[in-house]
Amino acid sequence: MHVPTTPEFSFRVSHEQGAARAGVFATPHGVVETPAFMPVATQGTIKGLSMDEVASAGGRMVLSNAYHLYLRPGDMMVRALGGLHAFARWNGPMLTDSGGFQVFSLAKLRTVHEDGVVFRSHLDGSLHEYGPEAVMRIERNLGADVIMQLDELIAGQAGESAARGAMERSLRWLARCRAEFDRIERDGRAPLGLTTTDAVLPADLPSLLPADPERERIAPTQALFPIVQGGTHPELRRASVAGILATGDWHGIAIGGLSVGESKADMYATLEVCEPVLPTGLPRYLMGVGFPDDLVEGVRRGIDLFDCVAPTRMGRDGTAFTPDGKVQIRKGSHRTDRRPLVEGCGCPGCTRYDRAYLRHLFVAEEMLGLRLLALHNLTFLLDTMRDARAALRDGVFDAWSERWLARYRATTSASP
Amino acid sequence: MHVPTTPEFSFRVSHEQGAARAGVFATPHGVVETPAFMPVATQGTIKGLSMDEVASAGGRMVLSNAYHLYLRPGDMMVRALGGLHAFARWNGPMLTDSGGFQVFSLAKLRTVHEDGVVFRSHLDGSLHEYGPEAVMRIERNLGADVIMQLDELIAGQAGESAARGAMERSLRWLARCRAEFDRIERDGRAPLGLTTTDAVLPADLPSLLPADPERERIAPTQALFPIVQGGTHPELRRASVAGILATGDWHGIAIGGLSVGESKADMYATLEVCEPVLPTGLPRYLMGVGFPDDLVEGVRRGIDLFDCVAPTRMGRDGTAFTPDGKVQIRKGSHRTDRRPLVEGCGCPGCTRYDRAYLRHLFVAEEMLGLRLLALHNLTFLLDTMRDARAALRDGVFDAWSERWLARYRATTSASP
Repeated sequence: MHVPTTPEFSFRVSHEQGAARAGVFATPHGVVETPAFMPVATQGTIKGLSMDEVASAGGRMVLSNAYHLYLRPGDMMVRALGGLHAFARWNGPMLTDSGGFQVFSLAKLRTVHEDGVVFRSHLDGSLHEYGPEAVMRIERNLGADVIMQLDELIAGQAGESAARGAMERSLRWLARCRAEFDRIERDGRAPLGLTTTDAVLPADLPSLLPADPERERIAPTQALFPIVQGGTHPELRRASVAGILATGDWHGIAIGGLSVGESKADMYATLEVCEPVLPTGLPRYLMGVGFPDDLVEGVRRGIDLFDCVAPTRMGRDGTAFTPDGKVQIRKGSHRTDRRPLVEGCGCPGCTRYDRAYLRHLFVAEEMLGLRLLALHNLTFLLDTMRDARAALRDGVFDAWSERWLARYRATTSASP
Repeated sequence: MHVPTTPEFSFRVSHEQGAARAGVFATPHGVVETPAFMPVATQGTIKGLSMDEVASAGGRMVLSNAYHLYLRPGDMMVRALGGLHAFARWNGPMLTDSGGFQVFSLAKLRTVHEDGVVFRSHLDGSLHEYGPEAVMRIERNLGADVIMQLDELIAGQAGESAARGAMERSLRWLARCRAEFDRIERDGRAPLGLTTTDAVLPADLPSLLPADPERERIAPTQALFPIVQGGTHPELRRASVAGILATGDWHGIAIGGLSVGESKADMYATLEVCEPVLPTGLPRYLMGVGFPDDLVEGVRRGIDLFDCVAPTRMGRDGTAFTPDGKVQIRKGSHRTDRRPLVEGCGCPGCTRYDRAYLRHLFVAEEMLGLRLLALHNLTFLLDTMRDARAALRDGVFDAWSERWLARYRATTSASP
């Protein structure tokens, strides 16, 4: 077991049942009860929703994306405006993903080499070099509580050789991220205006500089999370975990490279491979996973933190999560349906409106419909994790999760 | 002076200064302090906003559109679902426009003749006949407190002959609207399923019928408002008012056919023509006018009620109303601007965020930006009318409105 070095971060498991656990993850901006779903604020805002709505729905830790914020408005700009917490008006725990996934999926041209990734912005085609050190400087500027290493992404069905190459490179990049993370801790952040994002700094930036530039150089209190890679190959996943634990001590550990095209069975099997070799004292974050059943299956396999754009993206598309599976609100059968979307759900869409009106909003292409379904889906995931925590505390998680999954899956295929 | 016939409606002027007045308009769903701006819920929802947000911002009476709701989801459907108040979850005063303006501006093919307008839906090209009697049945089905007559619209710069023709036809249509309105009051509403919107009624509608079909036939308590027409021709406007007052007694009177292409000077002059000949005891509603300065100018000329999609439409486009004129939030000068949009404004966009973040939301094309600016603009108009009412009650309206207009116009042209 590795001892955390920053007292502001801690993780305590309070209840266990099989591999599942309930706990508390403490960060400089507050505590998160786990298992927890983290709403995604890709560009410093959760699509369609206000941070107040997300907090009211029970959101405690949110996630933003370093790739997006580096390109727009620029990590130096966010830092000059007070950091990501101040910029996005979220005073709770926050995590930034490195944007590795976005570089591999959004950027126009990208070449991966040992130093990092060279890519053209999906916004304006400008050329960027994105390596482990640059990513650390960017995430240090943004200032989230938890920041992610740069890793190399591959498709979920990649063969052993490609998966091994990416896993091993991710380990080498982790060591470089860690060295740069520690160096910034020691030497301070670069002065405003001296990073790769120079070009986007406006001429009037100096007026934003603090009275004491030296104080502004102090690195924020952050935890760097490593990412387990290795595709769906058990021996690679185990080697990745071993390599990560050999690299240093950590406040948490992430499992990446899942929900990227592999089968659900392969995803669950991979979680079962990782679970026994992961330290029990660290929070485990399954990246990019956010369908309701995948969350419950993940908790059963020892996962503590999740994130995904699915709830807001599917909500914008008119798809709602319910205990009986997914519902497409545009369906004609809802035209005269005066029932709420989910009986007992506390979200505004369920307490204030009926299915007939929600359907009308989508058929009439009204923005309120997108908002209400996005918030409903987010509420549904947050409520599901709250119920999972309660079941763990009550020692009934196995029965609860089996019943939950059976109900969710009984009708998912019947009424898509 | 014409005596109202429905005791649920009343209008009382409490303070006057020149032509301007403060008063209270009572409806079956509550009272509205005037002068007031009515937020527009065209399709039964205020674009981008929830009814709760609109109420929190100070909205007291909202407006929906019979043309849009007739086409989708259908007025019979809205009625079967409990009426527009229940459908849109707005329990306060509500008004429906007849949709005459939309027929003339949105419908694909339209031919106007004495019986009404034949048009093809802008949604699916289906053919519809929209006459005075049909419009009354539709608005009776929707069930708003105040419903508008069908009138004939013409361009703001139309010549005397065209303006006279449309004005006189609007008077004839008013008489037919009134006859049908009274007939429905006497005979009851048509049974569900027997109007021109037959085609859109789903097969499962009967299950929604009330236990007592006869009770459902009772017409809602409503007031029909006539519309003054006549373009920018003083003698036609005066003839229109005289014709309306000769047709019957009313609970309020609207001025239509303005803000449709004529100059601002012509609009203000036309209001000055109407003001002396309008009964002082009726609320006066200036249709489709909603820029901040036009509201203040309208109040100075005796107007009590306004509506317009401008606040939400301009908000979606990134244009914000401020006491110093309009501001385009995308402008580069806001990139590092940590001030709120409007100092002292109580809307979420101003109390929670700064201009730099709002600009980021628009540049990054994030939905939250649209919401925040739409709500800000609505708040700005509602606050302006609240301040106008206070100035009238305090007897300082002339000075207040001159100061307000001078400040608003001093910088509008300078920083568009």
